[in-house]
Amino acid sequence: MFEEMARKPAVWLSGEGSDSQVVLSSRVRLARNIADSPFPSRADTDRRGSILSFVKNAVEKSESLRRGTFVDCAELDELDRSFLVERHLASIEFTRCRDSSALLIGEKENTSLMVNEEDHLRVQALSSGLEIRKAFKMADEMDEDLSGSLEFAFDPTFGYLTACPTNTGTGMRASVLIHLPGLALTREIEKVISQISKLGLVVRGFYGEGSDVWGNLFQVSNQTTLGRSEEDIVESLERVTQQIIEYEENARKRLFSEAEDQIEDKIWRAFGILKHARTLTSEEVLNMLSAIRLGIGTGIVKTLSLPQVNEILALSQPAHLQKYFKKRMDPGERDRVRAELVRSKLEG
Amino acid sequence: MFEEMARKPAVWLSGEGSDSQVVLSSRVRLARNIADSPFPSRADTDRRGSILSFVKNAVEKSESLRRGTFVDCAELDELDRSFLVERHLASIEFTRCRDSSALLIGEKENTSLMVNEEDHLRVQALSSGLEIRKAFKMADEMDEDLSGSLEFAFDPTFGYLTACPTNTGTGMRASVLIHLPGLALTREIEKVISQISKLGLVVRGFYGEGSDVWGNLFQVSNQTTLGRSEEDIVESLERVTQQIIEYEENARKRLFSEAEDQIEDKIWRAFGILKHARTLTSEEVLNMLSAIRLGIGTGIVKTLSLPQVNEILALSQPAHLQKYFKKRMDPGERDRVRAELVRSKLEG
Repeated sequence: MFEEMARKPAVWLSGEGSDSQVVLSSRVRLARNIADSPFPSRADTDRRGSILSFVKNAVEKSESLRRGTFVDCAELDELDRSFLVERHLASIEFTRCRDSSALLIGEKENTSLMVNEEDHLRVQALSSGLEIRKAFKMADEMDEDLSGSLEFAFDPTFGYLTACPTNTGTGMRASVLIHLPGLALTREIEKVISQISKLGLVVRGFYGEGSDVWGNLFQVSNQTTLGRSEEDIVESLERVTQQIIEYEENARKRLFSEAEDQIEDKIWRAFGILKHARTLTSEEVLNMLSAIRLGIGTGIVKTLSLPQVNEILALSQPAHLQKYFKKRMDPGERDRVRAELVRSKLEG
Repeated sequence: MFEEMARKPAVWLSGEGSDSQVVLSSRVRLARNIADSPFPSRADTDRRGSILSFVKNAVEKSESLRRGTFVDCAELDELDRSFLVERHLASIEFTRCRDSSALLIGEKENTSLMVNEEDHLRVQALSSGLEIRKAFKMADEMDEDLSGSLEFAFDPTFGYLTACPTNTGTGMRASVLIHLPGLALTREIEKVISQISKLGLVVRGFYGEGSDVWGNLFQVSNQTTLGRSEEDIVESLERVTQQIIEYEENARKRLFSEAEDQIEDKIWRAFGILKHARTLTSEEVLNMLSAIRLGIGTGIVKTLSLPQVNEILALSQPAHLQKYFKKRMDPGERDRVRAELVRSKLEG
């Protein structure tokens, strides 16, 4: 499944939208549950089955939602599931695939709806660039459409009720995927992270494990969902992201005034390695693309565009790669094929 | 001085000659002293002056030697001296430049004669590839020519007398500059070095300091000069070098059968870095060229030739670089200009 989809990066990686030199994408998800039904983890097989039926029914009644595609998690093999996670259409939690877990992939692939994940419904919308408002609008419309046919668990005091109390209230998590090579190179990133945490936002490396951040890509998202309006969350994340972009731009300016040669060298070496290496890990591709993205943002690299960089970023992920080449590969083979793909994309 | 000479690599780096895939060059030098004169370190200014006169006189009488160019060490600035050392025409000892130290550069630049170095005369000949015999023949002819006009200090029992007893006898040091990436990558180099030492030969890294060998380039030379004929020294060095070449070739075969992908990757990354870097140290150029030389030797790199690699090797040395661009540069500027030169040579 998804071989055709894997030929191109997701639409939210188009490189378009506001501040797309620094912000790759914006995402909003809303957690919803159907009133008077136990949360998925407490629901038995039958209950989960009827939840899915209710949702499918509601989707059928929506002009826009019914143009999407429903896939049952049980029909997906492990590679399909990893592909959906790389695509940001499904969560890791979703790929555990318990009874009647299903995913609706929106027509334009910038929205999705998970059923019977941690909550009964997880509505999600993605947009390229710093476009939190746009993503929220899309998610909000889906939510409106669904609430026409479904009664959501809602408490006048608490707001939307969710399986995990950290989501209660708006049920909303808004986030941006942001590229911060300047702050990473000047080693100011830790300071920025700790400042942001005080504002009720969370910053974490988007790829890599523990303190190992790959590709200088960070995710910034709201911590609290309760006691604030959706509008408030969007506005606050937008404002803080603008602030981070400014910090990042200042860091880049400082880097270029203090160590232009080394930075240019770093950027061009990354280019040379991607263009010639015969074996590349995901981590290395992310790190080299980080340098090239910085090169494009600062006008040093003119022969490549952000959409091209995003395409390489997307297609070189392990599941994408296997879908793209339509075969299962072990990590060693993937590294070789990845290098091949990257070379061909840089030639073309 | 030497700006014109610095436009091209030395003739002994032409990439020609036997086994030039592995052996860059062969060199033979003969130490000679004029009879009944104190060695240079013991000679006063007047004595050193007359030694130089005697030698200049002898050179004038030789059909071939007089076509060379004499330069007085005192006329050379520091950069000129470093250039001559990089060119393998003069020794570090020579560049200390005491009274009446002078250098005769042979017409084709594959021979030289140092006067008032450690010994009164140091005759030297270089040849590309594994051509010790050829180098010896050239040095021997120079020696013959000079001995027609000069009486050398010679003892019937010991042979030629020299300032340092380690040179007494033949006064001959024969050496090859050899590239051993296979043995370095398989970590067998230490074993080979210790075996060779038992055969009366010395192996040492040619560039770099201490145990840090740059570019996997080693020099193999004879340890003993006494109690053996010149023919014997040449024959033995030639035989052992052939043996090392065989070890190296076996190591390369093993590497390619066990880790072809990694080796190819290493070679192409080196290519990518040289082709794109904006700043390159001498050490890195040597190391990257080592991988590329291996790539050419194994048929992986087809777009570059050994003479091209040798040209980059020669011209990217610090003094060559400054002579080539006709200006003094600090190390940081050299690294930038070196990267520029390497890029232009790889484009062209």
